[in-house]
Amino acid sequence: MKNVAVGIDIGGTNTVMGIVTEDAKILAEKSIPTQNFVELADYISALASGIKDLLLKAEGYTLKGIGIGVPNGNYYTGTIEMAPNLPWKGRVMLADELKRHFDCKIVVTNDAKAATIGEMVYGGAKGMKNFVMITLGTGLGSGVVVNGSLVYGSDGFAGEFGHVTAVPGGRICGCGRQGCLETYASATGIKRTAFELLAKYPDASKMREIPFTELTSKDIYTFATQGDQLALKAFDITADILGRKLADLCTVISPEAIFIFGGLANAKELIVDATKVYLERYMMPVFKDKVKVLPSALLGTNIAVLGASALVM
Amino acid sequence: MKNVAVGIDIGGTNTVMGIVTEDAKILAEKSIPTQNFVELADYISALASGIKDLLLKAEGYTLKGIGIGVPNGNYYTGTIEMAPNLPWKGRVMLADELKRHFDCKIVVTNDAKAATIGEMVYGGAKGMKNFVMITLGTGLGSGVVVNGSLVYGSDGFAGEFGHVTAVPGGRICGCGRQGCLETYASATGIKRTAFELLAKYPDASKMREIPFTELTSKDIYTFATQGDQLALKAFDITADILGRKLADLCTVISPEAIFIFGGLANAKELIVDATKVYLERYMMPVFKDKVKVLPSALLGTNIAVLGASALVM
Repeated sequence: MKNVAVGIDIGGTNTVMGIVTEDAKILAEKSIPTQNFVELADYISALASGIKDLLLKAEGYTLKGIGIGVPNGNYYTGTIEMAPNLPWKGRVMLADELKRHFDCKIVVTNDAKAATIGEMVYGGAKGMKNFVMITLGTGLGSGVVVNGSLVYGSDGFAGEFGHVTAVPGGRICGCGRQGCLETYASATGIKRTAFELLAKYPDASKMREIPFTELTSKDIYTFATQGDQLALKAFDITADILGRKLADLCTVISPEAIFIFGGLANAKELIVDATKVYLERYMMPVFKDKVKVLPSALLGTNIAVLGASALVM
Repeated sequence: MKNVAVGIDIGGTNTVMGIVTEDAKILAEKSIPTQNFVELADYISALASGIKDLLLKAEGYTLKGIGIGVPNGNYYTGTIEMAPNLPWKGRVMLADELKRHFDCKIVVTNDAKAATIGEMVYGGAKGMKNFVMITLGTGLGSGVVVNGSLVYGSDGFAGEFGHVTAVPGGRICGCGRQGCLETYASATGIKRTAFELLAKYPDASKMREIPFTELTSKDIYTFATQGDQLALKAFDITADILGRKLADLCTVISPEAIFIFGGLANAKELIVDATKVYLERYMMPVFKDKVKVLPSALLGTNIAVLGASALVM
């Protein structure tokens, strides 16, 4: 009898769920629009019926459980806590609510931690005991693995590397503070950097033709590959800041490797390789030339669904 | 049959060794001047004969092993690696050398990690799974405990929190870089801050009568308690910088508590309590009011000897 697990990635826009086999094959996948469900009860019903639909495609397999990655998801309590981009405010008893529908193991964690487990179980971090996962999306998510275990900390919220202070008194962050790393190193962060550069330098740039709301990090990458000096500089600043803060992190946990996931990670030479150069520049001598900086081996896959499923595998 | 362990604290000036019982009593202690032994072989002989003397005082006990805390000590390899303040250069095979004299478990780690183990086994961190130890001495040493285990990282050198960057392009550090936290938050760091303040402000201060080489952090504390505004400001700046970098660390590992050890920790209200105030100010909302900042419960004891012994207990 072979095993499967359900992996669920709850995002602000969509909730994607999949049935995953032990060798990381997604047998079936389904998506529901998260933002259409203002009432939690309606969302839980839609989620449960979606999972039941998927399970019909996995006859002959044993269900090991349901793993869920969600912003502000807490591993210890199975809850979502004050997630700014989800419709339900306060504390959501996600695991408990779903347990009314399914008699199996249900594990909740945040989206970046699910991706970290995905990299560890199915990706480039197989067999590594100490590594860091960085996901560069709208924000910067992270997962830290020490001694072979994901770090949850005393309250389940460890690993918020996007909210270390990169620039004291710097950019306003959604968390209510200033200068957080994710306001610089993320798809949104590089756009904010690009707009600072448009203001500071007189150089011609195609970015001058695009309003803030429409410019994407992919645009900035495209322009950079075409030789746009300001777009190149935006990448350089992003890699510099990320490399410097990763040097701090390496100093504390001395990982074997750092994996980078997310749209920006596709800009391999301008983000992954450039970050490595700055990391080495800022690194304490004893750690120099030891830490690999790699794109996630699962780029292009639904790592959040894979990782969520791996939580219960 | 009761157990004892030998704990050894190798410092640049002296090497202190003690026989420690399971309930943290030091049965006997001995010290040899580290710097008198230019030849490693001579040092090892003196160390071995010192240990043998101590063991005579522990008849009726079973020896569990020898634990050693030493700057740049590596847990994985039992070596000392390029320690700047010890007489022997390059890599010293410390555990292997001592094993020629003793047929027991011999464990090496750095001095701050030994102190961390001491706090966990004998001190205020008993039963804690996630905490941080900060030792404010000449430099800033640290130990990080995650999921109940000390973090050694992929190479054994994790936990160098004294060398995260507090001020990019800031003060020159002994490690070859600039702006490291220990150049601000340590006995030496606060003195450097005091001298900057003497240069910047015209206020009267007793610190103006003392040359750099003679001013101690204890002097600065004494003047601060007497109302010296520049001495008070030096403490305030130290707590501010330490609090901000600890906020970064909490964001990543979410500890239950932070313990502060070392001479500066005796300035409880001006360092321990003040750091807590700044930590809360800089902390990401989700972590606010969760992390305790405490003076080490082993202040005034030889925590390094206790901790080293705990390595093999």
